[in-house]
Amino acid sequence: MKIRVGIFGYGNLGRGIECAVNHNEDMTLAAVFTRRNPETVKILTEGVPVYHADDVLSHKDEIDVMVLCGGSATDLPVQTPMLAAHFNVVDSFDTHAKIPEHFDHVDKAAKEGGKVALISAGWDPGMFSLNRLYANAVLPNGADYTFWGKGVSQGHSDAIRRIDGVLDARQYTVPVERALEAVRSGSNPVLTTREKHTRECYVVAKEGADRSRIEKEIKEMPNYFADYDTTVHFITEEELQKNHAALPHGGFVIRTGKTGFHNEHNHLIEYRLKLDSNPEFTASVIAAYARAVYRLAKAGEVGCKTVFDIAPALLSPLDGETLRRTML
Amino acid sequence: MKIRVGIFGYGNLGRGIECAVNHNEDMTLAAVFTRRNPETVKILTEGVPVYHADDVLSHKDEIDVMVLCGGSATDLPVQTPMLAAHFNVVDSFDTHAKIPEHFDHVDKAAKEGGKVALISAGWDPGMFSLNRLYANAVLPNGADYTFWGKGVSQGHSDAIRRIDGVLDARQYTVPVERALEAVRSGSNPVLTTREKHTRECYVVAKEGADRSRIEKEIKEMPNYFADYDTTVHFITEEELQKNHAALPHGGFVIRTGKTGFHNEHNHLIEYRLKLDSNPEFTASVIAAYARAVYRLAKAGEVGCKTVFDIAPALLSPLDGETLRRTML
Repeated sequence: MKIRVGIFGYGNLGRGIECAVNHNEDMTLAAVFTRRNPETVKILTEGVPVYHADDVLSHKDEIDVMVLCGGSATDLPVQTPMLAAHFNVVDSFDTHAKIPEHFDHVDKAAKEGGKVALISAGWDPGMFSLNRLYANAVLPNGADYTFWGKGVSQGHSDAIRRIDGVLDARQYTVPVERALEAVRSGSNPVLTTREKHTRECYVVAKEGADRSRIEKEIKEMPNYFADYDTTVHFITEEELQKNHAALPHGGFVIRTGKTGFHNEHNHLIEYRLKLDSNPEFTASVIAAYARAVYRLAKAGEVGCKTVFDIAPALLSPLDGETLRRTML
Repeated sequence: MKIRVGIFGYGNLGRGIECAVNHNEDMTLAAVFTRRNPETVKILTEGVPVYHADDVLSHKDEIDVMVLCGGSATDLPVQTPMLAAHFNVVDSFDTHAKIPEHFDHVDKAAKEGGKVALISAGWDPGMFSLNRLYANAVLPNGADYTFWGKGVSQGHSDAIRRIDGVLDARQYTVPVERALEAVRSGSNPVLTTREKHTRECYVVAKEGADRSRIEKEIKEMPNYFADYDTTVHFITEEELQKNHAALPHGGFVIRTGKTGFHNEHNHLIEYRLKLDSNPEFTASVIAAYARAVYRLAKAGEVGCKTVFDIAPALLSPLDGETLRRTML
C-alpha cells in the first residue's frame, strides 16, 4: 500500500513534488489541485487527475498526505490551517519571522481535525535548521554562520523587475569566499552583511531605457541591495533565457566551537548544499517529511510538527533494523 | 534540577564527558566510576566523588544518565547491557559490524530494567550516520561517500606499535583531495580504497632497529596498510611528543544525487567535521544524547535507541517554541 500524496498548487514546487514522488517507490501521486482551470493544467505523470482547488474537500479519502505548494506571503498562511483541518499536510512556509504564528494556527487546525501537519520543510528552513540545531546541541560554546548561494534569489529578481525600464532580471546571491575561510579558521569573525555575500544581477533593459539610472536604483535599493556590494550586468533576453533559466541554489551552515576544561580545543562543523534546482531539492525534502507525517498519523499523533520534532528514522523507507545495519 | 551524569571509565573519553558536562548548564557531574583504585584517580572537577566500578549499583539513586566510556572491543559488549538493566545509559559503541547484535543485547536489558539506553553516539557512528540517513532520505537516487581525516587512527597507531623494534607511533588517515573533488563534481566515481585515503605514519624506532624492515612490515601489513599508499617517517620520541601528541580527526560525508522527472538535475550534500580533539567532540555528542535519554526516561520510554530514533529537539536545552523562533 503506497502513500497517496496530493499536490495543492502546481508551479515549480508542485512539479518538484511530482518528480520526488516518482523517485520514492513507497509513494504514489493521487491528485493535483489547482486554482487554474484543471483542463488547462498538463502534468508530467500519466493517469493522475487534476482537480480544481475548490473541490479539494470532496477528495479527502483519496489523499494520505497533502503537500501545499503555494507561496509563503499570502497562500500558505491561509491554506495550511484550512487544509490541516481535513488532511495530513506538509508545507514549506519560509518566512522565518512568522513561523511561530503560523505554527500556532496550523497546530490548532490540525488538532481540531485530528490530523498531523508539518510546516517549514525544505532546506532553509529545513535541512539548514536541523544542522543549526544539531551543531548547537553538540557544541554549546560556539558561533553560528549561515551563508547562502551561489544561487538565484527569486525575491531579489522580482525586486529588480519592478524597476521602471526593466524587462526581466535574474539575481544571484554569492557567498564571499574570504568570509567563508575566516569562519572555517575558527577565529569567530564578526561579519557585516556586506562582508558575507555579494549580489550579481543580470538585467534585460527595455530598448532606450536609461541603464545607469536602472543600475543606480538597483544598487541603492534599501534592504535588498544597499547593504551589499552589487554588480549589474545588462544582457539580452536571449542570453537570459540561455544562461540564466535554471534555479540553482545552496549554501553553508557552519558552527565553530570550543571544548575542553579550559576551552583548549577548536572544532568545525560544516554542512553544505549545492543544488542544481532549488524547487526540486526543496520538494525532495518535503517528500521525505511526507513519509514521516504519514507514519505519525498512522500512529495516532495529531497537531503541528517541524523538522525538529521528527526522529530521523521516520524519514527513511528502510526499517530500523536495516538502518542500524547499513547506515549507523 | 540538573541532569545528574555519571561517568563509567575515566580515560580520554571519560575526561571528555567531564568537560562536556561542564559546558552544559543543565547538567552536573554526579560521580565517576573506575576499575582502578579510586584514590589514585584525580579528576578535573572539584568535589565530585570517584567510586570503584564494582560499587556502581549502590549509587543507582544518584545518577540520571550513566555514560559508558570503555572500549568497543571488550568493555562495552559486557558493560552496556549490564548497566542498562539498572541505569539510563549512553555508549559510543563503534564496531559497525556488531551494532545489530549489541543493540539486541542492550535493548533486552534496558526493557527488563525499565530503562532507556542509547548506543553508538559520537561522530561515526553518530553525526556521520545521521547525515547518511538524512541525505539518503532526501536524495533516494544517489551515491554515498564517507571520507575520514585528516586524523589520528588509534587502531592503526597500535598496530605499528606491535611491530618489533618500534617504541611508539602515530598514524594519520588522510583523505585524498583529488578523490574528494571527483565526488563533489557529481560524477559518481567508483573509488578504490587506495584512491580514497592515504596513511601517514610517524614512528619512533628503538636504537639500532632495522628501519627498512620496520617500514616494509608497516607497508605490507594486511587490512591495515597493504591496500593504501603509506608513508613512513622515522622521528625521535621528543618530536612525537611535541608534534603528534594531539588526537585530531574529522572527515566528510557526501551524497550526490539526481532529481527531476528525467534525472536532469544534480545535487550535492556535504557534511564536514574538523576536530582538534576526537574524544572531546565524541563526548560532546554523547552529552547531547544524554539529555535526550533523560527526557525519554522521564516520558516513560524504555529500551534501546540509536541516534536515528531521537527527534532533534530532544538534544537541545531550549524548548520547542524557542527553537522554532531562533533556529528554524
